[in-house]
Order: sequence, then C-alpha cells, then structure tokens
Amino acid sequence: MILKDTIVALATPSGAGAIAVIRLSGNEAIAIAENQFKSVSGKLLSKQKTHTIHLGHIIDEGRTLDEVLVSIFKNPNSYTGEDVVEISCHGSSYIQQEIIQLFLRKGCRMANAGEFTLRAFLNGKLDLSQAEAVADLIASDNEASHQIAMQQMRGGFSSEIAKLREELLNFASLIELELDFAEEDVEFADRTQFKDLIERIILVIKRLIDSFAVGNVIKNGIPVAIVGEPNVGKSTLLNALLNEERAIVSNIAGTTRDTIEDEITIGGIGFRFIDTAGIRETKDVVESIGIKKTFEKIEQSQVVIFLFEAQELKRQDSKFKMEIERIKNKYPQKPLLIIANKIDNLSASERQDLAHSISSIQVAHSQLLSAKTGDGMEQLKNTLLGFVNTGALKNNGTIVTNTRHYDALLKALEEVSKVKEGLDTGLSGDLLAIDIRQALYHFGEIIGEISSDDLLGNIFANFCIGK
Amino acid sequence: MILKDTIVALATPSGAGAIAVIRLSGNEAIAIAENQFKSVSGKLLSKQKTHTIHLGHIIDEGRTLDEVLVSIFKNPNSYTGEDVVEISCHGSSYIQQEIIQLFLRKGCRMANAGEFTLRAFLNGKLDLSQAEAVADLIASDNEASHQIAMQQMRGGFSSEIAKLREELLNFASLIELELDFAEEDVEFADRTQFKDLIERIILVIKRLIDSFAVGNVIKNGIPVAIVGEPNVGKSTLLNALLNEERAIVSNIAGTTRDTIEDEITIGGIGFRFIDTAGIRETKDVVESIGIKKTFEKIEQSQVVIFLFEAQELKRQDSKFKMEIERIKNKYPQKPLLIIANKIDNLSASERQDLAHSISSIQVAHSQLLSAKTGDGMEQLKNTLLGFVNTGALKNNGTIVTNTRHYDALLKALEEVSKVKEGLDTGLSGDLLAIDIRQALYHFGEIIGEISSDDLLGNIFANFCIGK
Repeated sequence: MILKDTIVALATPSGAGAIAVIRLSGNEAIAIAENQFKSVSGKLLSKQKTHTIHLGHIIDEGRTLDEVLVSIFKNPNSYTGEDVVEISCHGSSYIQQEIIQLFLRKGCRMANAGEFTLRAFLNGKLDLSQAEAVADLIASDNEASHQIAMQQMRGGFSSEIAKLREELLNFASLIELELDFAEEDVEFADRTQFKDLIERIILVIKRLIDSFAVGNVIKNGIPVAIVGEPNVGKSTLLNALLNEERAIVSNIAGTTRDTIEDEITIGGIGFRFIDTAGIRETKDVVESIGIKKTFEKIEQSQVVIFLFEAQELKRQDSKFKMEIERIKNKYPQKPLLIIANKIDNLSASERQDLAHSISSIQVAHSQLLSAKTGDGMEQLKNTLLGFVNTGALKNNGTIVTNTRHYDALLKALEEVSKVKEGLDTGLSGDLLAIDIRQALYHFGEIIGEISSDDLLGNIFANFCIGK
Repeated sequence: MILKDTIVALATPSGAGAIAVIRLSGNEAIAIAENQFKSVSGKLLSKQKTHTIHLGHIIDEGRTLDEVLVSIFKNPNSYTGEDVVEISCHGSSYIQQEIIQLFLRKGCRMANAGEFTLRAFLNGKLDLSQAEAVADLIASDNEASHQIAMQQMRGGFSSEIAKLREELLNFASLIELELDFAEEDVEFADRTQFKDLIERIILVIKRLIDSFAVGNVIKNGIPVAIVGEPNVGKSTLLNALLNEERAIVSNIAGTTRDTIEDEITIGGIGFRFIDTAGIRETKDVVESIGIKKTFEKIEQSQVVIFLFEAQELKRQDSKFKMEIERIKNKYPQKPLLIIANKIDNLSASERQDLAHSISSIQVAHSQLLSAKTGDGMEQLKNTLLGFVNTGALKNNGTIVTNTRHYDALLKALEEVSKVKEGLDTGLSGDLLAIDIRQALYHFGEIIGEISSDDLLGNIFANFCIGK
C-alpha cells in the first residue's frame, strides 16, 4: 500500500471562523501549490526552505480567491513524511470550498479519512499504536483521556510492547539456532533465564490487560446510574454538577456542552450520568417495565447513586430503605452512594439529626446534600473520584484503551502461557518456537510491524478527514 | 486607543477537527509562548527568524499538553503589525481550551471580537474600509459577495475614495490659502478647474451610492417572492434548485446548507426565496390576512415568481390571470416571471399548445417548467440571473455594500452639492471652505482617517473572536 498521489483536505473544523487551514501532501504538493500562488515577495515556493511561511494570493485563472499564508514542509520533515503545504486562508466556507475545488481540478485528490496519518505511518513517522492515539487525542474531552492518548502518541505504550517483543525475539533466535544444530543436542537458550523472561512478560501483559478496564471507562466516561423517584432532584443535581463545570469553561467563547448533556468532567475524569426511573415495588405493568430498565442501567454502570429526599429519613415507613437493600443484595460488589437531598430548608439541628439517621443505614458511602444551594457538592465529587482507580493514571503507567490492542494482548497472553507450559513440561525447541512466533506476531500487530491493508483501512476509516 | 497587552484567541472554527490554530498577538507574544514551549530542536523561539515554523511541545508545569507547530511572525511583518505567534495544535476542544487557559494564566488576555483586525487597523496594516471587508469576506457565501469583499479588502474602494479626498484636499488648501491673503483679493484656486473637479466628484459619489442597491442585495441575497396556491409545486421547485447546488458542493465532506434552507446560489449570485400563501380573492378573514402578508413579501422582494399548474392555461375561467393582473397593477416596476409548472406528464403537442397560451399573457417573462424532471430549470436560472444588474460586478467596478459607507457617501454628496451651489452663486472662499471641510470629513470617515473609539467599537464588535 504505497500512496504516491497528492491529497488535499480541510484540516480545521468545518464552518466559518477567522481562519481555516487547507493541507496538501504528496510529491506534487509544492509544485501544485506554486502554480496557484502568487507570493507578495515574488519568490517561488519551490525555492523556499522547509518550515517557512509565505504571504501571497491564491489565483484561479486570473481570479484572486484569497489572500493567504502558505507554510512549506519538505519531506521527510513533515507530519506525513512527504512534501506538505498548509494554506491558511480566510475562514469562510465559500473560500474553503473554492480553494479545495481549485486544487482538485489542478491534480490533487480528496484525502480519505485519516489518510494524512496513514501516510505518516506508512512513511515510518509514527507506529500504528501512535497513529491510533492521534484519533483518540482529537476525541479526548477531559484530562484523563487526554493524558492517556498523549502518552500513547508519544510512544509510551509502543516502547513497552517493543521492548517485550525484542527480548522475546532474542530468545526465539537462540532457540531456532538450536534447531539448526538439532543433532548435537545443545542448548544456546538458557532455559532458566528464558523462564524468568516469560514470567516477566506474562506479568506485564496481565497488567496491560487489567488496565483496559480502567482505560476503557476513562476513555468513554465512567457510567454512573442515578436511581431515585421523580422530584427527588435528579435533574437539579445534574445541573449543579454541569454548571460548576460550565463556569470553568465559560470564559472561552464558542464553548458549548450541549451535545454531552449528561457527560460531566469531575477532577479531570469524565462521568456519564444515566437517569433512571427508580425501583419502587409495584404491581403496575408499565411501572414494572420501568424498574426492569432501571436494573439494566445499574447493571451497565460502574457506580450507583441512590437519591432521595432528606425528610424521608424521619419517617418510619419509608420504602427507600427497602429499595437500597434490594440494590445492595442484587449488586453487592457495585460501589453505592446514598444521598439525602433537599437539606436547604433545614436548621442546623435538623441537619444533625438527619446526618445521624443516614449514618445508621448500612452502606459504605452516604451523605446529605442540597443540589439547589451546592451544599455537599464537594463531598459528592470527592466520593465519586474515590471510586475511580486512578492509580495507574497517577503513576503515569501505561493504560490500554484500544479494543484492538486489548484483543492482541489477550492472544499474546494465550501464546506466551503456552510457551510457559512448554518450558515447564520440557517441550522440544521446535514446538516452543512455534508458540513464540505466534506471540511475537500479536505484539507486532499492535505496533504495526505486521499489518494488512484491511486492518489499516479499518483503523484509519475512523479518523476525520484532514487528519 | 492604543492596545499594548498581549491577546490570545482560537482562530479556527470551534469544534473538533484535525488541527486548530490558536493565535497570540502583542509585545509579549513570543516571550509568553517561549516559556510554555519546548522545541524539538532545543532552540529558543525568540532567537528564530520571522515567518518560520517550529515543532515542539506545549508544557504546563511539567505536564505536556500537546505536540504542536509554532509559527512566528515578527512586527511589523504580521497580520496585526505586532509580534504574532500561531500555535497549530491537535483539534480537540479539550486541548484548545487547555492551551488557551494556560496562556490566560501566563499573562495573555482573551481577545475581544475583531481585536486582531482592530490592531491591524490601529497599526496601519489596513484602513478601516479594508478591515470591514475582512468580516464581509468571512461571511461571504457565494462568488458575487466574495468578489466584492475581496476587492474592498484589497483596497479598490479605499483608493477610489482616497483619490477623491486628496484632490478635494488640494483645492481646500488653496482656498484656505486665499483666506490668509483675503485683503489682497487673489484666487489661488482656479474656480473653473474646481467646478470640473466637484462635478466629477459628484458623478463618482452618485455612482457609488447607486451601486449600494446592487451591493446590498448581492451581500444579503436577492429576495425572490414565490407566489402560488398550495400544491402548485413551490417546494419541489425550491428543492430542485437546492439539489443542483448540493450536487456541486457534495464532494466536500462536512458541507451543509441546512442553515440557509431557502438561500440558493445560482451562477455565483445568492438568491433568497420567500414562500408566500398566494393571493386568491376571498371573503375569509384568515385567508385575507394571508393575502396581506403575501403582498408585504412581494413588497420586500426584488423579483416575483408567479407559479401555477400548466393545466390551468386550458381553462377559460382560471382565476390565476386575474391574480397576475393584480400583481402587475400593484407593482408595475417589479420584475415578474410567470411559470406554468407540472409539464412532466404532457405530450410534445400539448406542450406546444400551452407554450402558445402562456406567451399570450401580457408579461415580459413566462415559461413552462417541470420542477420534478428539471425541464426548464436552465431557462429559469438564466431569467433570474438576467434580473440582476451584474454590470458593475462584471466590470470589476467598485460596489458599496456597507451601510456605514453608504451613509457617509450620502452626507458627502450633500456637502459637495452645497460646494457646487456655492461655486455657482459665487460664494466667498471662507464659506466654501466650511462645506469642503465637511465633505472631507465624511470621506475620511469611510477609510478611517477620522474615527472615534465608539465607531471602532461598533465596527469590530460584529467580528468573530479570533479575527
């Protein structure tokens, strides 16, 4: 899969802005741009140094399309490793279209989704796992997912895998060397050292596989089910969490969180809050369907918040305690936080009484709250953050977030475990070698040393155009 | 109004894309960026030449925010005329925010709307009319409005005004010189030459004022009222026009015309199609309100299309002819196109009969059409384009699109006409001088030689942030 033509695409988000950037990459990029560009200085683009910027006009058959800045990157010192030209034009959709259409007429092809990054991979500028991290980085919307993507893009994960692969490869070579001298019955590969290595590899793979559970929720947001009857203040609570977040971003114009209404970032971690209908015992068919759905949502969640009105704590016949018991019995392992809301109208002594009542309920986490005034919000956020296993994040450890990597790691673990078994049972070198080769194959898949066109097509199809 | 602090803003459209560009401008721009940037080459930004690009990382207290390209522009060779740094980062909203927040903490101020262009004006990089054209250019969504904005931005309009102003200024100086020698009764300013000049100026101003009518509709789209009963095919016609346009832009991903549903570009000119309820005679109160609204919409339009079913042409008692008469009588000057729609099911001979019937109606423009099959669409588009006075556009003449300029030109015309009157009646030099000064003032207003902070505030508040 070697791509030789010159591609063009809009690199900035579509829509109107102050400026937009159109990117060309390929052997002809500089020549094609030069033909349509009249620089103010009168100099030719092709005579310019790499990493320089030139003011001038884009001309289409004598008609000036725009005044632009043209940046030149010469291969191999560019994102793709090819010659790259970036045109910074005025940000009207009309101008963007006109310039792209012009370059399409003059010999460029419209870039496919992710094709700039695919070319960077094919030209050895990034390995496959780093290339995948580029898409994750663009999609990241909170500190944790950003940090994981950044680390992967900078090669943290790749170098860990590459190191394991290399050590394994060394032993594989020695064992295969033994096969050449099979009749002499020598052992070039020290079996004890090899066993140590295999055990170390298994530990690392297991750690990476375990990190996927954390990585996946961090990448997609940690699902939190909010269980509670209508009017206990679920939406007030969500708005309170959302508004504090909004206050942080509000001094940047154009920032809106409308599309992720229920995804809220707390302390740099994304949480997905899932509203439920509650689980009150009922004989009503429609309501019981609602309860079934609530349990499904609890099932999918990582954390459950049970919300009720603080006044309920005073009543002896309150049903909410039975409901809490039901959740505890059904999901004993799931972190549960019970919250008594609407303490805003209460006096200090009333609050004290209620605090005493709530602490008598047998759950690990409970608190009083006023979603309306914000009283207790800090405690709530700290409790939620406490549920997240951020150890790996804080230690800057490698976290796997990509399903493809996870699958390859599971397969590698299977093969490496076979090697270990073989070593324990004194399996012959030629059979060991087969399992080692398989494990190496799966490591190679992750960083892209082994890849098929189909696989590459799948990966880069998920990118946006222009990257 | 001298702005000395360093400003920052997102220059590309908000939202996720492959890349985003963050722009800093001001005395401290390079120093502030340098403190947060670790270049791959290890070199300091402040030691780099203007118009160069540098790969590296944005660092916030040891934490890497992103791998970026940093472009440097040193004053006066930048858009604003100040030191400018452009940071091309990965296009996630999260990263954009983090980087902007970082620079806000490190001494930048969030740019106001249009502040980069305001600074360009204050530093003499653009005159006021050119600065205004930047906003028009970004807002332009078709060839005609783009061309007008481009021409204005490149100074076509400004230089025409500046030339008139200078010639007038020369004469004003001579007349004011006469005042110094008032007792000697000399005439430094040749009155005949001056009269010629004034007449020439009046001609130019009148031409510019006249161009505003064209310029304004081109900038905002030419309003076309479609009059017709329900089911005559109004929406099919709009979709047919819209779809052809869509086909042109469809090979660019991310292009959507949803927000301007009824604005359609034909031959590079924007048309705004306004649906009406028809004008059938009625005693029904509700319907008669509808008819009143239809007439209001016709009033606001530049062109009227009257649409009816072709089969109606066969009927003797058809009401549509009376309706056409009503429109003709009420708006004799307004271009009217009558269209017989739904000819798709007709045989060639039937079409010929109908073509004959329609040509017998006393209107300048009539045609048969099938909005469904597209038959007759080309003719329709050509007729519409024929209604637009594109003479000035084609001759690359100056077209005024800005209400502020239009107002200043009207005032200038008033003053210059007074000067002409004064010359005709032999008014004394000192009184002439007053009127000339007033005319000069209004010319100066257009290009910004004379401007107040209030005026600048108003103009740049309409820009987007980041420009």
